[in-house]
Amino acid sequence: MEKQVTKKNERVEEVFNLFIKHVQAFLKEAELNHQEYTNFVHWADRLGRSGELPLYADVFLETHVLKAMYTDMPGTQPSLLGPYFIDGSPRLEADPGEPFVLTQRPDEEGEVLYFKGNVSSVDGRKLGNTRVEMWQNDAGGKYSAFDSDAPRYNLRGHFYTDENGNFEVKTFVPVPYSIPDQGPTGEFLEYMDQHPMRPAHLHLMFETEGHETLITQVFFEGDKWLETDVAEGVREELVTKLEDNGSHKEASLNFVMRKA
Amino acid sequence: MEKQVTKKNERVEEVFNLFIKHVQAFLKEAELNHQEYTNFVHWADRLGRSGELPLYADVFLETHVLKAMYTDMPGTQPSLLGPYFIDGSPRLEADPGEPFVLTQRPDEEGEVLYFKGNVSSVDGRKLGNTRVEMWQNDAGGKYSAFDSDAPRYNLRGHFYTDENGNFEVKTFVPVPYSIPDQGPTGEFLEYMDQHPMRPAHLHLMFETEGHETLITQVFFEGDKWLETDVAEGVREELVTKLEDNGSHKEASLNFVMRKA
Repeated sequence: MEKQVTKKNERVEEVFNLFIKHVQAFLKEAELNHQEYTNFVHWADRLGRSGELPLYADVFLETHVLKAMYTDMPGTQPSLLGPYFIDGSPRLEADPGEPFVLTQRPDEEGEVLYFKGNVSSVDGRKLGNTRVEMWQNDAGGKYSAFDSDAPRYNLRGHFYTDENGNFEVKTFVPVPYSIPDQGPTGEFLEYMDQHPMRPAHLHLMFETEGHETLITQVFFEGDKWLETDVAEGVREELVTKLEDNGSHKEASLNFVMRKA
Repeated sequence: MEKQVTKKNERVEEVFNLFIKHVQAFLKEAELNHQEYTNFVHWADRLGRSGELPLYADVFLETHVLKAMYTDMPGTQPSLLGPYFIDGSPRLEADPGEPFVLTQRPDEEGEVLYFKGNVSSVDGRKLGNTRVEMWQNDAGGKYSAFDSDAPRYNLRGHFYTDENGNFEVKTFVPVPYSIPDQGPTGEFLEYMDQHPMRPAHLHLMFETEGHETLITQVFFEGDKWLETDVAEGVREELVTKLEDNGSHKEASLNFVMRKA
């Protein structure tokens, strides 16, 4: 018999076996009966067929993955990537001293926001030339490329920090929004008596040599939904102040990246 | 503010909270990283969209639900319902002393099997007039109504035990078969280096007043796949002998139902 080439993946096997071990403990404690199992499978099938599975996982599970990995570690806490990230955003350019301008429509609605940040390493070094990816919703609560009439990369873009690790970007204040709640995810929310709202947030992803990619979100003080975010994505250190400057708003936050 | 009618379901909330508690323990132990989480979600999305989620759940999870509930309890061990049960099978009738004949095509292929059983209660009482539902694959390894040219209820039917809890049904010997392995479930099997085969089995469901519905399977000694059943559905007490009687095969097993 010839030796077969297999696609065996020992890590998948290890993780699956651990998962079953903990699922067994869960089943013992929850005393799930066969009808409840069947109800769960029917719901999960509807969830999967509807294409909402990544939404559900990102909203209800991803935050626990992150908390298991990062709580109590130095460096900025990550928050969820979520289902609305897409690859291939345009690179933004700016003249020295000028802010980057996040991709937007000529008639983009909303309150103008100047958002500033600084990126450093856990060892205190400023991280110049860090790639910063940013994406957010528009004044209507929509993400481009998802159930939106906006161009594919609207309110999405990436740019690089200056030699001191600083950046400034001109954009619009994001708004609180409801995750899709008319399908199986919404059905789950009704069972849980949980509203579908997320507080307003900017999505940011930082990449630089020698460091772990940092995926996080920025929230704003006073947001009505901070305490009850459906996705539990809020971390105290990720909440910043939205300052009113007459014609526009300003906010800032500093970010600390972990070594790879 | 008017009182809102909610669809809140405290059992869903309780089960979900326990699930998250055990998932957190799993994540700590497995040290799942964010890329692995993302890979998992992409795979699960393909699984869900393909409609294979019930297949995956029934093959890889259902047996653990059953083991958590029933191991070490008196009465016949349940085995998985599986994804191939459908409602509405025809009621079979037979003259006294004659076996029921499972719905079949005039030219049905395979080895004829006479299968006998007795149904009793854990208290020893014989359970006459018990509803017995039976379904199985054909000689080609197909279940009717699933990727099969056979009529919808082929090799499916239900009947009732006699006053002593006995039944006999004339059917065909089921065959080992491969679960669908060309989609995301197959991808998982490749990672696990696990073959996709299930040993030959009859599916049986018993319903009678005052007792828990018993869903189980019957396997046959000597089957090559008993030890490595992809769905881990085999229980020692569910394995019976396939006797050769010249023109046909015979097998039997007795079943003990738990009180409701």
